[in-house]
Amino acid sequence: MVDSSEKSSGPALRVAVAGASGYAGGEVLRLLLAHPEYRRGRLEIGALTAGANAGTALGALQPHLLPLADRLLEATTPETLAGHDIVFLGLPHGQSAAIAQALPESTVVIDCGADFRLTDPTVWEKYYGSAHAGSWPYGLPELPGARERLTGARRIAVPGCYPTVSSLALAPAIAAGIVEPNVHVVAVSGASGAGRKLDVALLGSEVMGSVRAYGIAGAHRHTPEIAQNLTAAGGVEVSVSFTPVLAPMPRGILATCTAPVKVDLAEARAVYEKAYADEPFVHLLPEGVLPQTGSVLGSNAVTLQVAIDADAGLLVVIGAIDNLTKGTAGAAVQSMNLAVGFDETAGLSTVGVAP
Amino acid sequence: MVDSSEKSSGPALRVAVAGASGYAGGEVLRLLLAHPEYRRGRLEIGALTAGANAGTALGALQPHLLPLADRLLEATTPETLAGHDIVFLGLPHGQSAAIAQALPESTVVIDCGADFRLTDPTVWEKYYGSAHAGSWPYGLPELPGARERLTGARRIAVPGCYPTVSSLALAPAIAAGIVEPNVHVVAVSGASGAGRKLDVALLGSEVMGSVRAYGIAGAHRHTPEIAQNLTAAGGVEVSVSFTPVLAPMPRGILATCTAPVKVDLAEARAVYEKAYADEPFVHLLPEGVLPQTGSVLGSNAVTLQVAIDADAGLLVVIGAIDNLTKGTAGAAVQSMNLAVGFDETAGLSTVGVAP
Amino acid sequence: MVDSSEKSSGPALRVAVAGASGYAGGEVLRLLLAHPEYRRGRLEIGALTAGANAGTALGALQPHLLPLADRLLEATTPETLAGHDIVFLGLPHGQSAAIAQALPESTVVIDCGADFRLTDPTVWEKYYGSAHAGSWPYGLPELPGARERLTGARRIAVPGCYPTVSSLALAPAIAAGIVEPNVHVVAVSGASGAGRKLDVALLGSEVMGSVRAYGIAGAHRHTPEIAQNLTAAGGVEVSVSFTPVLAPMPRGILATCTAPVKVDLAEARAVYEKAYADEPFVHLLPEGVLPQTGSVLGSNAVTLQVAIDADAGLLVVIGAIDNLTKGTAGAAVQSMNLAVGFDETAGLSTVGVAP
Amino acid sequence: MVDSSEKSSGPALRVAVAGASGYAGGEVLRLLLAHPEYRRGRLEIGALTAGANAGTALGALQPHLLPLADRLLEATTPETLAGHDIVFLGLPHGQSAAIAQALPESTVVIDCGADFRLTDPTVWEKYYGSAHAGSWPYGLPELPGARERLTGARRIAVPGCYPTVSSLALAPAIAAGIVEPNVHVVAVSGASGAGRKLDVALLGSEVMGSVRAYGIAGAHRHTPEIAQNLTAAGGVEVSVSFTPVLAPMPRGILATCTAPVKVDLAEARAVYEKAYADEPFVHLLPEGVLPQTGSVLGSNAVTLQVAIDADAGLLVVIGAIDNLTKGTAGAAVQSMNLAVGFDETAGLSTVGVAP
Repeated sequence: MVDSSEKSSGPALRVAVAGASGYAGGEVLRLLLAHPEYRRGRLEIGALTAGANAGTALGALQPHLLPLADRLLEATTPETLAGHDIVFLGLPHGQSAAIAQALPESTVVIDCGADFRLTDPTVWEKYYGSAHAGSWPYGLPELPGARERLTGARRIAVPGCYPTVSSLALAPAIAAGIVEPNVHVVAVSGASGAGRKLDVALLGSEVMGSVRAYGIAGAHRHTPEIAQNLTAAGGVEVSVSFTPVLAPMPRGILATCTAPVKVDLAEARAVYEKAYADEPFVHLLPEGVLPQTGSVLGSNAVTLQVAIDADAGLLVVIGAIDNLTKGTAGAAVQSMNLAVGFDETAGLSTVGVAP
Repeated sequence: MVDSSEKSSGPALRVAVAGASGYAGGEVLRLLLAHPEYRRGRLEIGALTAGANAGTALGALQPHLLPLADRLLEATTPETLAGHDIVFLGLPHGQSAAIAQALPESTVVIDCGADFRLTDPTVWEKYYGSAHAGSWPYGLPELPGARERLTGARRIAVPGCYPTVSSLALAPAIAAGIVEPNVHVVAVSGASGAGRKLDVALLGSEVMGSVRAYGIAGAHRHTPEIAQNLTAAGGVEVSVSFTPVLAPMPRGILATCTAPVKVDLAEARAVYEKAYADEPFVHLLPEGVLPQTGSVLGSNAVTLQVAIDADAGLLVVIGAIDNLTKGTAGAAVQSMNLAVGFDETAGLSTVGVAP
Repeated sequence: MVDSSEKSSGPALRVAVAGASGYAGGEVLRLLLAHPEYRRGRLEIGALTAGANAGTALGALQPHLLPLADRLLEATTPETLAGHDIVFLGLPHGQSAAIAQALPESTVVIDCGADFRLTDPTVWEKYYGSAHAGSWPYGLPELPGARERLTGARRIAVPGCYPTVSSLALAPAIAAGIVEPNVHVVAVSGASGAGRKLDVALLGSEVMGSVRAYGIAGAHRHTPEIAQNLTAAGGVEVSVSFTPVLAPMPRGILATCTAPVKVDLAEARAVYEKAYADEPFVHLLPEGVLPQTGSVLGSNAVTLQVAIDADAGLLVVIGAIDNLTKGTAGAAVQSMNLAVGFDETAGLSTVGVAP
Repeated sequence: MVDSSEKSSGPALRVAVAGASGYAGGEVLRLLLAHPEYRRGRLEIGALTAGANAGTALGALQPHLLPLADRLLEATTPETLAGHDIVFLGLPHGQSAAIAQALPESTVVIDCGADFRLTDPTVWEKYYGSAHAGSWPYGLPELPGARERLTGARRIAVPGCYPTVSSLALAPAIAAGIVEPNVHVVAVSGASGAGRKLDVALLGSEVMGSVRAYGIAGAHRHTPEIAQNLTAAGGVEVSVSFTPVLAPMPRGILATCTAPVKVDLAEARAVYEKAYADEPFVHLLPEGVLPQTGSVLGSNAVTLQVAIDADAGLLVVIGAIDNLTKGTAGAAVQSMNLAVGFDETAGLSTVGVAP
């Protein structure tokens, strides 16, 4: 990795954000504004684009981004995105491929959408009902082999939020072969995971004071993404039962993950300690301390706890992330850092905003 | 069942509530105030007792119970509870046995605590660390055989909130033998489930905006209660993996329950339809409609949905209740109705307060 | 008032609800389902109508109303609403007049919208920008003279939610002349007050964790309604400064009301005690106990506290209501009771659902 | 102001935080961890102290501060705090004076408590009921003259959260004489404003879904602090009516401030534009855009909007802050920057975490 301080004399990298009016785009911008390379002038925020909101000032839509309040949103077109070194895409599914094809191969394109996450066209078509656009290096550096593929990459698929925490919670056990390849994940998410979408079910009055499951029994599109990650980690087909649950909070995912276990707690902890010993963002908490989403709000940290349910014969792993940070925009910035040679952790924190 | 209208000329039944300053006691009182037999003078609200809060007016502690605002809380003693026909106990674990023994056998004693729920002394001692007080008829009339045991009963153990929804979600499948006796339950609860307890982790600032698991890997005391119910329903030992999760809302539990399944969806639905066809409070929702806790707020309803995850080979059952109503005080009142011969549904609604 | 028990042998009154898919319509139905005259067969729930949702089952839109889940929504037209004795209107502003004109004069039409609240056409036009439809008896029986006008009425304008609590908090002081006619109201409301409207600003992710003012500096349409009520109560023009604030909760309004005061606390309390001594729903709390919205959730109660800020020379009145119950549908049912001769309090509770 | 980059070769300043287990102390640490001088080694985090929690690892109490998770809390004594260049105090009222006296005069002591905020001993005694400890430079640099007093200061009193936003919202108008010295403030706060205090009224189940006023009619201790600030700004005695309101969110304050106005909107805006033209943290929003607390979560920004209620003859100013950041710890760090000669804005952001 190149020491970023050496490079501060070079020309600035120009960044565009497509979908700057959405939650993913807004979070990318929040992180960029705090990025040390932005502060020292090595990153420049260029075009901010949107769909229906083009023409509006960003301040009217993302009032928390005060330093960019006066920036006008442009239309999301290849033209407005041209001339940038790095382009973040926070677009509805299915719109990334056309945009990416129109951009030079040398541009770093980082897609926060699903279009290039799945490798198997059949699985893509089953879950998304459209033609497969292909697959790009997967922006979860903590998975085996991923960091290498991301270093210097020019096209990156940012993982889904549920797959991020679920895969990091289970991959070490699967890779080490200490569990059967048969996992259960029930993951509780804040409402921003659904995006900034006009839907009666997402109105505050409906969300507050209520918890509900959705996309159950394998229907959620993140199911095959989790299976793909775990299968790759273990080298055996992994069966995944996944249930997403919506909770009354803006951000955060707490995943409860279980699998039939073959080892005791000491051995299981050792597997996780080893897997994440050098990872800056993944923290195995001290024994008995349980992850909570509030502690990782706005941070890029993943907190994990591992336990053994001896009566049920299960490994139980609890994981927490901020769905918009490590689950989306933080992973995007972390991947950008790897792609362009910045410190991998630059602009990303393990300190949450709490309470 | 005796038609309650015939009995309206008889003398009033006098009710005491021990622990009237807590959430369970408060909810019992809320339901009693709306009970038709209370309105017609057949139920009288007698002593309201508390521990440290004795001497305080109820209005200072339960300001939502305006009609009882001026009632003074007495100390929880056999003496203050004597002379009542029905006594609800909403006490910390371990305090019910002594109180119950001091009351006449003819008094209907309905314990919202855990003391008399478990039948196996070994299991009790493992989970509660004290001597087993015994077991009483279990206040979940919808379980096989339970309604008969509750009719005319004089001692009743109200089920735990998690076991209520988990057992009702899984018992039909277990009883019908359409799943393997090996179940996973992840249940997300509002904060009132922890009681009105001074604990930093329950402060609003800590709870809001955060989700966390606790009592994982079989550590939660409701685990053996779920296992006991399902084992009784199926006649085979049922292994239970149970994870409770705390969500930022005052009330409600949403349980995601899975088990390896042997049948298809039509057969599974048929099992549930048959099991609950005549139950006034348990509702299998139309296909595709998913339970949410907000819809059962303040109601005694249990809403269920059943699905098959074909890839994972699982039955998925989602269930929602209000933990304080059907999960505690509603079950207590439903049991009281059976014990004293009122309509089982009297004073209990299937209409939630939403949004 | 006719004793409702005498009338139970008569024919049932048939009720229609227009706008049954909205929050106001849903709350009217929740209250009707619990109404004693519905239980004894004196009220029948007839047509349930909607706009874009016509043709849908109510259960898909109001899943908390389980007993009506299978009822199909019809289109809101004079035809579908014809043939009912009582019609509740929960429609967008401006749609009630045409519907009401098409219904027989003998039908009790209860409008939860704003169309017939304001008496002054000039004020209406200034705030609503359309022609004035007229004014109907105002459904706040606790205001001077209102109960008489509502008894037997056939057209009723249900008050706005903010005006309900603000007017009840200030009218006694204004009427008694113990304050200057110059009041400040800052009222904090839950999100359901905005209706079930697709608006990015009402999404759960935007509402949770945030408080914001809106319609400030007299721009909110409830400002002239408060002024109208207080001016009528006092017989002098009352100047109103009104600021509505949106808080992250589904229901409830807490109003902080102040006015320059001429008397001491004892005298002020005496005025309020006298004003509401016989009111079943308005409760002046004991000295020092402050209203909170959580205590009146789902109830028709108004809780008030009165204090004197001696340094600032102000009367301070705090009031709490549930905006959907006493603030809308509860007032509608209370008015219906007066209109058709039921007990005024029938079907309405002063017990909240808490915590 | 000294350019901080010049000083990076000097010895590190050692910082202690007393009350590190509380919300104020936790937020100071969150900000210090992100402070550029901490990153470049010019600030060192030394002793972290607590009362009853001494001996515990910080990770058990402030799990969001992952980089400091293993740090042990020491007892809050002059000895543990000795040997530091900067000491932040986040202690219960009344404990700061003794600690401060025991520290050398050269130590920068920054008190997040109330002990040294009020200048008038009579007012202090009336509101706090104890002997007055004195007054220190007031840590709100945006008030007239304050920045000068803070530059190089060795003792600093951090303002109360409500006074911060209320004073910044009203001081320009008072100072310019465009309003009468007679103001109303109703401020809605998240629950963390009450501190990490075991109190039934602060439990999540009580706070969520409910809004309540407290300390009304001038009883809240922040009332005289607001009056002191505004009186100083205007040179005339300012009468303050202040009502604090608790809302169901962890952080944030939204203040609605009014005063009888003598000018029109253009003139009023001009006053605010001029007052805050050079302030990095105070933002007058574009006309019509209203502040919301969610937009300043975790940021040091103050967002303001100004309007005229012509009918009521009032200036209406709405202000939003994060009570723990700009309202407490952000002001503390901003003051520290001034005291030791760092850039005033170092480590402080105007970007909020949203949604």
